[in-house]
Amino acid sequence: MSSKQIPTLSRRELLAMIGTVAGSAVSYRAMASMGLIEESTYNGPVKLEGSPKGASVLILGSGIAGMVSAMELRNAGYKVKVLEYNNRAGGRNWSIRGGDVYTELGGFTQKCEFDKGLYINPGPWRLPYNHHGILDYCRRLGVALEPFVQLNYNAYVHNTQAFDGKPQRYREIAADWSGQVAELFSKVTKQKKLDELMSAHDQEALLESLRSWGALDRNLKYVPGRESSNRRGYEKPPGGGLDAAPIYSKDFIDLPDILHSGLWSAIGTAEAFYHQTSIFQPVGGMGRIGEAFGRELADVIQYNSKVVKIHQDNDKVAVTYVDPKTGGNPRTVTADYCLCTIPLSVLSQIELNVSPQMQAAINAVPYSASVKVGLQFKRRFWEQDEHIYGGITYTDMPIGNIGYPNTDYFKSGKGVVLGAYVHGRNAFEWTAMSPAERVRTAVELGSKIHPQYKDEFENGVAVGWHRVPWTLGCAGSWSEEARAQHYENLCQIDNRFLVAGEHASYIPAWQEGAVTSAIDAITRLHHKVVNS
Amino acid sequence: MSSKQIPTLSRRELLAMIGTVAGSAVSYRAMASMGLIEESTYNGPVKLEGSPKGASVLILGSGIAGMVSAMELRNAGYKVKVLEYNNRAGGRNWSIRGGDVYTELGGFTQKCEFDKGLYINPGPWRLPYNHHGILDYCRRLGVALEPFVQLNYNAYVHNTQAFDGKPQRYREIAADWSGQVAELFSKVTKQKKLDELMSAHDQEALLESLRSWGALDRNLKYVPGRESSNRRGYEKPPGGGLDAAPIYSKDFIDLPDILHSGLWSAIGTAEAFYHQTSIFQPVGGMGRIGEAFGRELADVIQYNSKVVKIHQDNDKVAVTYVDPKTGGNPRTVTADYCLCTIPLSVLSQIELNVSPQMQAAINAVPYSASVKVGLQFKRRFWEQDEHIYGGITYTDMPIGNIGYPNTDYFKSGKGVVLGAYVHGRNAFEWTAMSPAERVRTAVELGSKIHPQYKDEFENGVAVGWHRVPWTLGCAGSWSEEARAQHYENLCQIDNRFLVAGEHASYIPAWQEGAVTSAIDAITRLHHKVVNS
Repeated sequence: MSSKQIPTLSRRELLAMIGTVAGSAVSYRAMASMGLIEESTYNGPVKLEGSPKGASVLILGSGIAGMVSAMELRNAGYKVKVLEYNNRAGGRNWSIRGGDVYTELGGFTQKCEFDKGLYINPGPWRLPYNHHGILDYCRRLGVALEPFVQLNYNAYVHNTQAFDGKPQRYREIAADWSGQVAELFSKVTKQKKLDELMSAHDQEALLESLRSWGALDRNLKYVPGRESSNRRGYEKPPGGGLDAAPIYSKDFIDLPDILHSGLWSAIGTAEAFYHQTSIFQPVGGMGRIGEAFGRELADVIQYNSKVVKIHQDNDKVAVTYVDPKTGGNPRTVTADYCLCTIPLSVLSQIELNVSPQMQAAINAVPYSASVKVGLQFKRRFWEQDEHIYGGITYTDMPIGNIGYPNTDYFKSGKGVVLGAYVHGRNAFEWTAMSPAERVRTAVELGSKIHPQYKDEFENGVAVGWHRVPWTLGCAGSWSEEARAQHYENLCQIDNRFLVAGEHASYIPAWQEGAVTSAIDAITRLHHKVVNS
Repeated sequence: MSSKQIPTLSRRELLAMIGTVAGSAVSYRAMASMGLIEESTYNGPVKLEGSPKGASVLILGSGIAGMVSAMELRNAGYKVKVLEYNNRAGGRNWSIRGGDVYTELGGFTQKCEFDKGLYINPGPWRLPYNHHGILDYCRRLGVALEPFVQLNYNAYVHNTQAFDGKPQRYREIAADWSGQVAELFSKVTKQKKLDELMSAHDQEALLESLRSWGALDRNLKYVPGRESSNRRGYEKPPGGGLDAAPIYSKDFIDLPDILHSGLWSAIGTAEAFYHQTSIFQPVGGMGRIGEAFGRELADVIQYNSKVVKIHQDNDKVAVTYVDPKTGGNPRTVTADYCLCTIPLSVLSQIELNVSPQMQAAINAVPYSASVKVGLQFKRRFWEQDEHIYGGITYTDMPIGNIGYPNTDYFKSGKGVVLGAYVHGRNAFEWTAMSPAERVRTAVELGSKIHPQYKDEFENGVAVGWHRVPWTLGCAGSWSEEARAQHYENLCQIDNRFLVAGEHASYIPAWQEGAVTSAIDAITRLHHKVVNS
């Protein structure tokens, strides 16, 4: 347990007492005033106090977890070395840019043909405001951030089985759903059907809140007029000069059509804790974080080093690595400790002597499937033709998302769109395709939403995460059962060996999981070293 | 009427027929496919075809309406001259920066002491995605735009009369309101109280949508757990390594407390058509638009020219102006036509010979009151201490809003906050204060939300729009009655004189009103000139 948790626990005990005596309202305010309602377990730069006594740590993997560990341990006085499979730092923190070459499992090599300045993030693409750890490393490393647009009211929601397969504007679905639902329940309330559940005084206030939320008129109706057009948009918006009066939108989408379309499911997406505003992306691509770490750690990262064996004894850890291209030239390096951030999907195939419990944990975690496709177009037609500036279109087609670039708004010239973000069963099917076929399919399906695709498409790149040689999957996908049985065993220090990474966290697939896992691991390792 | 409206009208007639025959669903889809559901009446750069035959136009005011008119008329071949009261272009499109000096009515002079790079926008601060006109001028003038954060889930909502006056996080109010309302109406639905209003099949889908929207659990309850914490936040969020399991938030805010606090009213704010994402601001301040226009029109704008008289006869228009500082040095300039963008609050006090109907219209429009205060702080404590990155805190105190800077996120150093955006009766009271007193009051009230104010405050500026000599108010505030009686009279061409500006639009106070008004005015003027 990290020492920072200890005061929290005793405060929590105190609050349990307050809650018992005075009820939840007092308890809530007490918690808020004591700062106990937290957004993150990250509490500012980690402090590793006390001497490491010359200890050395070999870190496997230069992803976020590996580089956080390397930077902090080096700063605390450890001798640090990082072995990295790739010829770059970052791991899944990665932006593919024009000129980049990438070879996936099976031998397909792609050379990215994007124009200068354009990129796609095949891995993580968002930095929520409540992920204080990764945000603080951006600050410390000087990585400039800009807003990520999670929700765009003018983007589309799309179900091939509804509305004749025509995409709908989010704002119209959201406004017509909330408006008609608010009207329905206002009616039920006025029919006295809540009388057993709520006082008349509360019902009055409830109706006011429903009117505000649903954009209802004075009579609690969702009808054509000022309020509804101020949400869903106008048939003819207000203008200037003569003939400038608005014509209110009147052809609402019937509530049952919305309900059975399932398109309402997009409404909550931007309200999820990790999607809420403010949410950010690095200027120039997510890979800017890995690149900044890489510069910071240039003297300790050794690239092009594929780990094939990890062996510890009572004195040291020995790690053997080879050239990842040839599998040849094996060399062995030793250290006092080894912190391993290699994904479990890969680590489970590497010879390693740890406890049966830890080995069972390493073997227990399947990796989720995901495919991302980046598409370059001749012009930013989504902005110019459709007035969609950033954000995401959601569809039930296998492409899942179309993500518009959240940068360079209103610029002329080319643009790169996230043309597919494929999950689940579809992702396995897409991983089985060649990269060129993934790109072709993304263009084919995307053109059902944006007919401009066919004329404007230039080139694309596709990453199927189960074919990425150094991860063999997207992210650790813990079942609740596996976590109950194996998670604590995975996170122990096994003699001189321990792991870190998003797979050793409760925030799988997010970089914050890698950061908080690394900080917890090095804090415990340091405690062991200082007290040994 | 502008010619672009004509096809729209006939299409609308066609659609009325479709609607009658086939019902609203077909009508809706037909409208969408015909592009009839519009976001703006701006249809791309205006085309003024045909020769102006050497005609000259004198434009009064270099705000957005005046400069759009000047640029387009000049490009169409007119001889154009602009008279401007101030020594800068932009009008209410204005950013106050360090070193700027501003003297308001009554003689108070402020010298802004902000650090380099910091600014406040005393006038407009937002550019909605559906304001295609002003956005297109930004594009054409090369004004870079960045996202404006309208909604920030981690900012506060605050009512001095609720929750002991303690500010609440928006995300907790929003989640607890929607969760408990969704649970309440799910219960009513399961109690069969909707059976007369909706089929069982529809009710099933309705319950699914309520569950998704309200973050309810499988049993349609809003209870501590994964779903609710994924909206309102955690008591202890998930982390990495050992002791990293989340503790779900359990001290919800009771629904009646939320209902009677009125804080739910913030929920709809970001859903308004002009506040929806994506929404923008110019990089470096709203004033960048006026400055860019000013550079573009450097050869036709004459600054420091206060109009005191406008006289037209059958041959020309003569405009007399003086030095605004001294009221002296009167000079007269003539032109074939005069397009006047001077706010009606000022124009109504200038000698002018127009029809009684137009003069009555000019006299009929009161101007809304508004005060904005910008405050510079030593550090960006709202980010560093409270993890609020951009967006707005809402309060019932007279300051109304606290607007955090939507730029330079995570930077160290100083920052400028919109410390007050005062409306209505409060704005008249604040206008009566000295600028220093407005600043002092904004700091005093704001410190009830951010106690850091008192230690961190450095300096501020305050603009009370009714004391701005060249507008005498914030924006035209049409009543429905005044609009019915006077609006069309205001927008006519009176012999050689016509007006443009947000006051001659159905989008008062927004720059898009100025743009669309100007385009309508010059289109009609050009039609008259070409056909005369």
